[in-house]
Amino acid sequence: MHTVKVNLNKRSYKVIIGFNTINLLGQFLNKLNIGFDAYVITDYAIKNKYGKILDKILRQSGFTVKFKNIPDRENSKSLEMSFSILKDIAHYDFRRRIFIIAFGGGVVGDLAGFVASVYKRGIPYIQIPTTLLAQVDSSIGGKTGVDLPEGKNLVGSFYQPRIVLIDIKLLYSLNQRQIRSGLAEVIKYGIIKDKGLFSYLETKNRDILALDEKFLENIIKRSTQIKASLVSIDERDNKGFRTILNFGHTVGHAIEAAGNYRIYNHGEAIALGMLIASDISRRLRLINHATFERIEKLIRIFGLPVKIESISLSDIINAHYRDKKFIGKINRFVLIADIGKTKIVDNIPLDIIKESVKNRLSNITPT
Amino acid sequence: MHTVKVNLNKRSYKVIIGFNTINLLGQFLNKLNIGFDAYVITDYAIKNKYGKILDKILRQSGFTVKFKNIPDRENSKSLEMSFSILKDIAHYDFRRRIFIIAFGGGVVGDLAGFVASVYKRGIPYIQIPTTLLAQVDSSIGGKTGVDLPEGKNLVGSFYQPRIVLIDIKLLYSLNQRQIRSGLAEVIKYGIIKDKGLFSYLETKNRDILALDEKFLENIIKRSTQIKASLVSIDERDNKGFRTILNFGHTVGHAIEAAGNYRIYNHGEAIALGMLIASDISRRLRLINHATFERIEKLIRIFGLPVKIESISLSDIINAHYRDKKFIGKINRFVLIADIGKTKIVDNIPLDIIKESVKNRLSNITPT
Repeated sequence: MHTVKVNLNKRSYKVIIGFNTINLLGQFLNKLNIGFDAYVITDYAIKNKYGKILDKILRQSGFTVKFKNIPDRENSKSLEMSFSILKDIAHYDFRRRIFIIAFGGGVVGDLAGFVASVYKRGIPYIQIPTTLLAQVDSSIGGKTGVDLPEGKNLVGSFYQPRIVLIDIKLLYSLNQRQIRSGLAEVIKYGIIKDKGLFSYLETKNRDILALDEKFLENIIKRSTQIKASLVSIDERDNKGFRTILNFGHTVGHAIEAAGNYRIYNHGEAIALGMLIASDISRRLRLINHATFERIEKLIRIFGLPVKIESISLSDIINAHYRDKKFIGKINRFVLIADIGKTKIVDNIPLDIIKESVKNRLSNITPT
Repeated sequence: MHTVKVNLNKRSYKVIIGFNTINLLGQFLNKLNIGFDAYVITDYAIKNKYGKILDKILRQSGFTVKFKNIPDRENSKSLEMSFSILKDIAHYDFRRRIFIIAFGGGVVGDLAGFVASVYKRGIPYIQIPTTLLAQVDSSIGGKTGVDLPEGKNLVGSFYQPRIVLIDIKLLYSLNQRQIRSGLAEVIKYGIIKDKGLFSYLETKNRDILALDEKFLENIIKRSTQIKASLVSIDERDNKGFRTILNFGHTVGHAIEAAGNYRIYNHGEAIALGMLIASDISRRLRLINHATFERIEKLIRIFGLPVKIESISLSDIINAHYRDKKFIGKINRFVLIADIGKTKIVDNIPLDIIKESVKNRLSNITPT
């Protein structure tokens, strides 16, 4: 078992990583003095698989338990859903010692964190991420959010959990595509901050894809360390340090949105976004061709897409300009100067962006 | 003109108090570097009276302006209303440099602050309070909130404005009842923290009720200083310092709620709540009878109610037990040991509370 610390003075918390850590939940909660009544927000599939065991662990530790099950899809992250949950919480909060457990992937985590941040101006919540993507990324850092028709995460808050409990065992019920989606973010950490992690992914890809516990634990540990260190120095994402986490995300989000969140999942879209950002870096002569090819090869090895299918260039460019990371009409890209080294560049000519996107379009894609 | 500072490190801000300060709005906004596009949340009456002048001031200073008018009543503070405003803001936020102006009383301020706190995880907002109550109390301190059917302010945040601009001239369009409601909170500041302010209110009551500019400025300045100093040392109301601001509010809220927010406005209910808290203090021998009578006399002089009409004891007690300041079934009261000196007391026997409430019931009230 490993512990990674997010250092934010009074809002500091631990990220616990290990196998079967969920069994220790009662102990951790009791140490946190977090409340009496657990309100568990989860999705239907997770509830079916792990609801009974979580319920048992919580009750044996003296907590009351109420489950709220939501559909595991992006449109659950809505204001309507938050409202319905907030009203439900008010109904169950008779002892005024309620706390929230986010037990699921990124959708559950973002929604549960938002609801926790605004109910009674903030009640405690914890994250038990059940996907690799949530474990290495969204469960850490306190960004909460729900979507508006006008854009993703347009409503939300910065609100830190009291603990993040990562149980590697939970990953065994994921399908291959979900695992690969999480691995895209692990690859990102290597590219932006850790050449060693990148090489480790190159050499240990078989063990990782076989979901060998030891190798999973290593890459999760390293990823969460990088995320935790960036959050610790830039909690509200306004000092520039957290920005590098957006590597691959500017165009990646546009690809995700242009495909209506159905064609590509988050990790797949980010894999394509990272390739485009790397390609732009190459065109601006920040990296050489060999470095670009190393990145492309690693993404391919992990079964992530390297070509965009069924989405047109214009749809991607349009979605791109709606991205909230744009300030006015100025664009800002996280590029790389090497593996493990980022460079922020403003105002990249639209032609270069278009060329790099075009380069990723598969032959069968309409343009 | 006076400036009172709320000291919260990077979230520090100024409270500007004066006559016609609204004319300086453009200057202040430009110094704050707050954005380009002003989204003004206000109520219909304020829009009719001051909409044109505010619009002109903002446009002359180079801002675009969009007004959002809401009904000035408690049920505007709903999740549904926030939802509709958030969607509207997303629609107007094309340049991504939008900021919010809360231009109204407490309802507008609480709602606008909440919306500002969650749109894009927080955009800047300022307060231009238009009621005496909002000027001396709710516009300062960053408590935002909307109501649920289960209780007032159950959803909200701590989110500080970038400036609070108090224009005494705006008070001249209020009716006597609204002025008195605000004076109840001014009296509260005297009772909890400032014997000098209390004496000033006793001796200058005629000048104040005549809305003499100089006297209004003095009591607003002193009230905001007290509020600002308590907020500065206890931003999130979890260190105990801000608690004393709840003097009169525990039973006051219950009276307000039991009357469905129609029989008594906030200040009137708080005046009654202060009398009950003072009466409990007397029964517990924390203050003598003469001190109690001084308080009762001052409240009476300012035209605030000293007897409860049309609400029953049981309705008040029931509403009282639903108050969110209760921890479990334990009660906590802010009492006084003298004028200007508070004492927090837990677990006051229900009999004593009931006796003090009964003592306030007018003869015509059903019991």
